[in-house]
Order: sequence, then C-alpha cells, then structure tokens
Amino acid sequence: MAAKKEPKQLDELFHEGLKDIYFAEKKILVALPKMAKAAESDEAKAAFEKHLAETEEQVARLERVFEIIDEKPQGKTCPAIIGIVEEGQEIIKEYKGSPALDAGLISAAQAVEHYEIARYGTLKTWAQQLGHTEAVKLLDRTLAEEKKTDAALSELAETAANAKAEAA
Amino acid sequence: MAAKKEPKQLDELFHEGLKDIYFAEKKILVALPKMAKAAESDEAKAAFEKHLAETEEQVARLERVFEIIDEKPQGKTCPAIIGIVEEGQEIIKEYKGSPALDAGLISAAQAVEHYEIARYGTLKTWAQQLGHTEAVKLLDRTLAEEKKTDAALSELAETAANAKAEAA
Repeated sequence: MAAKKEPKQLDELFHEGLKDIYFAEKKILVALPKMAKAAESDEAKAAFEKHLAETEEQVARLERVFEIIDEKPQGKTCPAIIGIVEEGQEIIKEYKGSPALDAGLISAAQAVEHYEIARYGTLKTWAQQLGHTEAVKLLDRTLAEEKKTDAALSELAETAANAKAEAA
Repeated sequence: MAAKKEPKQLDELFHEGLKDIYFAEKKILVALPKMAKAAESDEAKAAFEKHLAETEEQVARLERVFEIIDEKPQGKTCPAIIGIVEEGQEIIKEYKGSPALDAGLISAAQAVEHYEIARYGTLKTWAQQLGHTEAVKLLDRTLAEEKKTDAALSELAETAANAKAEAA
C-alpha cells in the first residue's frame, strides 16, 4: 500500500513564501528602472533608484535564506505582484505628460512596498517559529527597509509630486 | 481643428483609484466568507468574519466618496487584488487538512490588508490635495480600520495559528 501523503507543514509554507517573494523581487528589479525613467521629478527618480539598489541587496539576502533552509533560490509565479506591477505600467501609459504622473507612480510604488511588507512580515514570523535565527535577522532587515521606503514615499506623495499635480 | 486632448489630472487619478479599490472591496467581500469557512481555528474564523462586516461598511463609505465627487459608484478591474485573492485560494486548496492552513490564510489576509492600506493611504492624500474634506475623513476611518485589522492578524499569526502548525 502506498504511503499516505502527509499534509504540508509550516516549513513548506515558509519555502513557498520565499519562492513567491523571490519571484516578486525579480519583477520589481525590472519595473523600478522603468518607473525611475518615467518619473518627472528628480525626487521621485531618486526614490525609485534608491529602492532599486536596496532591492538588489534584498535579493541577495533572500538567496542566503534559501541557503539556510538547504534549498536552491527559485521563484514561483506570483500573480499578485504581476497585477501590482501591471497597474504601475498602466499609470505610465495613461498619465504620460500629465502633472499627476508622479503621484500615480508613487502610489504604484507604495502598493509594491506594502505587498513586500506583508510578505516579509509573515516570513519573519514563520522563520521565528521554525527556529531559523539567522533568517529572522535577514528578513527583519529587509522588512525595516521596506517600511522606511514606504514612509519616504508617503512623505514624497504629500510634498513633491502631488503638490505639482494640484498646482498645474 | 480638433481640440488637443488635455493630459489627465489628479482628480482623474483619484476617481480611477476609487474605482480600483471599489472593485477590490467587492472581490474581498466574496473571498472573506470562503476564508472564514476554510479556517481551522475559531480565532481565525472570527477575525475574517469581523473583517467581512467592516468591509461592508467600507464599501458604503466608498459609495459616499463617489457621491462627493459626483460620480456613480463603479469598479474597474484591479489585477492586483485578483492576484492576491488567487494566492489565498491556492493556500486553501494546497493546505487543506494541514496544521499550517491558518498560518497561510492569515498571511493571505495580511496581503489583502496591505493592499488596502497602500490604496487608502494614497486616496486620502489625494483627497486632501483636492480639497475633499469629507472624503478625507471617510478614507481615514477606513485606513485606520485596515491598520488595526492588520495588527490583529499579526498578533494572531504569532500566537494561535502558527503555533499550532509548529506543534503539529
């Protein structure tokens, strides 16, 4: 008689979550330069470029977490980030030449940040419960960066880009 | 000679953002009962049911905001929320009968919350800049609820559901 298939456990959920965010980070690496190129203001361009550099480090940290759990870094199609990035591309197309373009781009970037905040928060909790102490530190570092980036984007939305849109 | 088409402005971005989150809330109204039904623990079930009741009020608030800007409440397909909800459905399918099911469901719900936090934050900022004072209050009330729900889910993830997954 064949062995009964065991139900999936938290370690598998953690591994699948890692694959999901690894795929997402790779998508973000492609989307951010397009957003930086499209942005009107120097402040928005700089914000997207800074986050691009951070994302590269975050990918490297994820690769280390895969190593900790003895898995090869591998992505798994994440329909959520595909949808979020798609909405950002639509903004670029529909608001090109508009004073509201940067407001739209910053909004798209904040949707990306919040997706990451949700995922890294969850992964950090699971890493704690699974006893992966080094992974907790790595995930927490990325989580802190994402929160900081989101706060900086909120500030930018309130001052630069949207104010310009309003004044136009 | 035909009049040159004016570039889109912040008021259009605001209107389109409202349509996006209105579509998203309607999707969430359908997804939450499925998540509540699938959840193993009473705490997770209760959390999803509570958020369902809140979502109904949030939809009514959005309808009032449409009224403020003299527009009919209308949704616009939002690929992001479709992707996020799809990932939650996958968890239900793949982790049925697993002690990690609730951890996965809570994680899916937090991805939903963070999408909403990003969107309501942006909409509130734009409403301020457009001078829609009553809309600011309504959007802020929803934003505060979403943040509270996310914090409650984080707590739940740390105590109930994941601990059960770990102990199994």
